[in-house]
Amino acid sequence: MTPSEPIPIIGGTGALGAGLATRWAQAGVPVVIGSRSAERAGEAAAKVREAVPGADVRGMENGEAAGQGEIVFLTVPFRAQSENLQNLRDHLRPGQLLVDCTVPLAAAVSGKATRSLGVWQGSAAQQAQEMVPDGVTVVAALHTVGAPTLADTAAALDEDILVCGDRKADKARVARLVEAIPGLRAVNAGPLEMARIVEQLTPMLISVNVRYKAHAGIKLTGLPDGDHWA
Amino acid sequence: MTPSEPIPIIGGTGALGAGLATRWAQAGVPVVIGSRSAERAGEAAAKVREAVPGADVRGMENGEAAGQGEIVFLTVPFRAQSENLQNLRDHLRPGQLLVDCTVPLAAAVSGKATRSLGVWQGSAAQQAQEMVPDGVTVVAALHTVGAPTLADTAAALDEDILVCGDRKADKARVARLVEAIPGLRAVNAGPLEMARIVEQLTPMLISVNVRYKAHAGIKLTGLPDGDHWA
Repeated sequence: MTPSEPIPIIGGTGALGAGLATRWAQAGVPVVIGSRSAERAGEAAAKVREAVPGADVRGMENGEAAGQGEIVFLTVPFRAQSENLQNLRDHLRPGQLLVDCTVPLAAAVSGKATRSLGVWQGSAAQQAQEMVPDGVTVVAALHTVGAPTLADTAAALDEDILVCGDRKADKARVARLVEAIPGLRAVNAGPLEMARIVEQLTPMLISVNVRYKAHAGIKLTGLPDGDHWA
Repeated sequence: MTPSEPIPIIGGTGALGAGLATRWAQAGVPVVIGSRSAERAGEAAAKVREAVPGADVRGMENGEAAGQGEIVFLTVPFRAQSENLQNLRDHLRPGQLLVDCTVPLAAAVSGKATRSLGVWQGSAAQQAQEMVPDGVTVVAALHTVGAPTLADTAAALDEDILVCGDRKADKARVARLVEAIPGLRAVNAGPLEMARIVEQLTPMLISVNVRYKAHAGIKLTGLPDGDHWA
């Protein structure tokens, strides 16, 4: 799959965003890395092009990046989520999907990464849905895939991505992008409110990673074969 | 592995308890099914012996059952958890482990099984820890394995059981029993407070099961080989 339209990654200079950019670049999908600083975005893009020669990856200031594609990924730390959404208000337009990958780790307020914060709306994704302009729809995904594993282009991925959103058609569009990365399967985890649970998987996996010195991911067993998204 | 000591299952006439009893019976582990009614416990035990001829499975009133082994499993619905723990107060003794399998589904208060209740202590398992007599330690496990899959003795299991507890040695004892059932791997998910997250996996899996018409389970990828519990 090679969509002609690029994937904007807001906060794409961070570990998760850069890892995703690298994997999509490998898969031949154009990416626009967004950052508060156009310069740092450009540097991050150059790094991806170094790792994946010939990759179509550019860097831009976040607001400009957000206009470059219909499905925008938000990969900033929870600490910066609200500020970023505030800044994106004038840049997102009706019809766009915002894929929120935020996890409300207690680390955002100098707590542990194995604990989480209660978010008034129920989840970071629901907070995002409250903050985006009218007509923009939030889908939650990509909380459990480890940034180090994504960044290691030699590492084979083999895990599921739980996707939450209120309309299957929206989730299906995100699923196609997720599954453009070999080794990732997108699973329909339910409505956006289910992000309350899915976001919590990250601190649990971090706890497991500490104990096992591993980079654990999630897989669901017992699902039928075939394309759920077709 | 065949421990000589039986496994008491409080609320063992329910779907999860009966399923576990059947699988342990298959594995040659003696089981005592507990119920409020000794008669119904006896009937449930007879059913297991029918499914697994020659199985060492007996039925007793809950309080009596709880005294039959050092590692007691509590498999009642959340609605009945507090009442059962109250009733067990005079029967549990210091040194015993109570394995809480309770999930605070909103179904307990006529809500949806794809949603959960907030528990004051943070999780059903932490509520259990508050309610057991001094010297009894709670471990949380077995939230995600489906009762229908357990009950279908012809079905092959292939999933992980996330185990939460404050001491690895306690979790290791529970892990041995979990892994006595072929196809189940016990994963150390962290301290008991992590049950706040692990208990939430059940409503998420129920949501997936509805969408996929499946009996989904959980598996963690990326863990090292070898026995974590040794």
